[in-house]
Amino acid sequence: MDVLIVGSIAYDSLESPAGKSENELGGSASYGGFSAAFHSKMLGLSDIALVGVVGDDFSKNDLSLYDAAGLNIEGIEILEGETFRWKGAYHGDMAVAQTLETHLNVFENFVPKVPKFALEPNVLFCANLHPSIQLSVLNQTTARRLTVLDSMNLWIDIARDELITAMKRVDLVILNDGEIRMLAGEQNLILAGKIVQEMAGNPILVIKRGEHGVTALHREGIISIPAYPVIDLIDPTGCGDSFAGAMTAHLAKGDGEISHTELMESLVHATVTASFTLESFGTDALRAISPGDYQSRLIAYRALSNTRLSQE
Amino acid sequence: MDVLIVGSIAYDSLESPAGKSENELGGSASYGGFSAAFHSKMLGLSDIALVGVVGDDFSKNDLSLYDAAGLNIEGIEILEGETFRWKGAYHGDMAVAQTLETHLNVFENFVPKVPKFALEPNVLFCANLHPSIQLSVLNQTTARRLTVLDSMNLWIDIARDELITAMKRVDLVILNDGEIRMLAGEQNLILAGKIVQEMAGNPILVIKRGEHGVTALHREGIISIPAYPVIDLIDPTGCGDSFAGAMTAHLAKGDGEISHTELMESLVHATVTASFTLESFGTDALRAISPGDYQSRLIAYRALSNTRLSQE
Repeated sequence: MDVLIVGSIAYDSLESPAGKSENELGGSASYGGFSAAFHSKMLGLSDIALVGVVGDDFSKNDLSLYDAAGLNIEGIEILEGETFRWKGAYHGDMAVAQTLETHLNVFENFVPKVPKFALEPNVLFCANLHPSIQLSVLNQTTARRLTVLDSMNLWIDIARDELITAMKRVDLVILNDGEIRMLAGEQNLILAGKIVQEMAGNPILVIKRGEHGVTALHREGIISIPAYPVIDLIDPTGCGDSFAGAMTAHLAKGDGEISHTELMESLVHATVTASFTLESFGTDALRAISPGDYQSRLIAYRALSNTRLSQE
Repeated sequence: MDVLIVGSIAYDSLESPAGKSENELGGSASYGGFSAAFHSKMLGLSDIALVGVVGDDFSKNDLSLYDAAGLNIEGIEILEGETFRWKGAYHGDMAVAQTLETHLNVFENFVPKVPKFALEPNVLFCANLHPSIQLSVLNQTTARRLTVLDSMNLWIDIARDELITAMKRVDLVILNDGEIRMLAGEQNLILAGKIVQEMAGNPILVIKRGEHGVTALHREGIISIPAYPVIDLIDPTGCGDSFAGAMTAHLAKGDGEISHTELMESLVHATVTASFTLESFGTDALRAISPGDYQSRLIAYRALSNTRLSQE
């Protein structure tokens, strides 16, 4: 098992200046999974598995999309009831989603069970989900190389202590700039990042900054790279999840401690991947990335940011 | 003459979360000039000249600071009356200054006279100033390589037509992200940049993004690089001017059209230089940069952003 992803699987209803879309397949495990699956093919990884839950209303066609992407979905439970539903809207610069409705449904009492074959993944990615579920998965598994945790403002608000407990259990925490400032109670992003690192037992910290790129605090030094400038911005949902999915797939390629150059390279791929996610409602654009389109955009990104490959 | 800088010379009163400071030597020509002078020494340029105006209250000691930096100040006129004064405050993330007071004083009726020896600079930098004064300087001079123009929201508001006329006369326009969006009436920064390029007769466009770095639109493609993360943020005044000063000094080194790699390299130096400016009220930190401190921060910046030297 290269990467095990635990996260939400949802039907999203979305509004943005570009229009509306109903019942889009979404959730952090979906975006993270499709992204990691794309990279696993390019990297020659063997297995990406999802753990999550859906209701008995979940469409067979949507389940088959995971299969088609090469994702192992034996860890997706189908429970009686409705699939998790989220309704959100984006306005203005589309940097922050406004939540209109949240229906946890089958997530309400979900206790994840990690399948036996996935108990020792090279990388465990706890995608955005209630921290108590993340903790349950952390208790069941022993990642060989790396544990990664994402979260959101909601859990900082209503489950801060559990979130900090979960953060202390992982090697790499990934959050956005607003969440870092909120957790730290500090405006300066680098200072806020250092405060969060301290409260979390000093993990690598990856700070997603939306259209402004990504900044990471690594033992060997800071990393900061720009975003890929997207003109056809349709829907930012899942952008951060697909970012993290690409990053975890790249970090599943090796072993030992994550080096500065390795993290840098994984963040370049995460950035380029996320730029595709924005270009449609739901997972359509992410699932439709071709290796050719990806390579073209990667080359364009390296030209505009002047970032070099670590092997150069 | 390598670089001719026309801009404001001011006494600033400043408030930020870090404290207050009164009567700081400031203005776009001061910040741009000190920055360009620092780089001219490192680059082996011979001459950086300022054109501007001060009142008869301007201190001899402050005049001597330009001399000490190696700036040619024969083009600074001393008129009867008071020096331009600006009072501003920064709050929250300190991205935007709130203007509390502006006293144009001797600037009110200033007609710049470019000294004979400066009529054909390699680079002309029209730093932030009323666009009619910028136009007057553009009419008097013939830059051998490059003309650069900076501006601000105030002139977009009250002298938009003159600003656009001036922009059409130059090869490179440098503005911040808010100003670009304001001029274009468009939120997407890349689209907004293209709109501004079109209204300005297609100059190179450099978009300063404060703590988020810089994005440039160049004929050969986009450039986007992050800011240097500053923890001890004291006062952002003059940050953009010192950024532009460093850029123009680097672009004064060569001749012919500005290439993508040359622009990229000049923006790396501009970014590193601006990061020092933030670390004090007024021009103190900018004027105090040592070559050793500069090289250390340049190396740190290249490590964190993974940007390579064009000659690598």
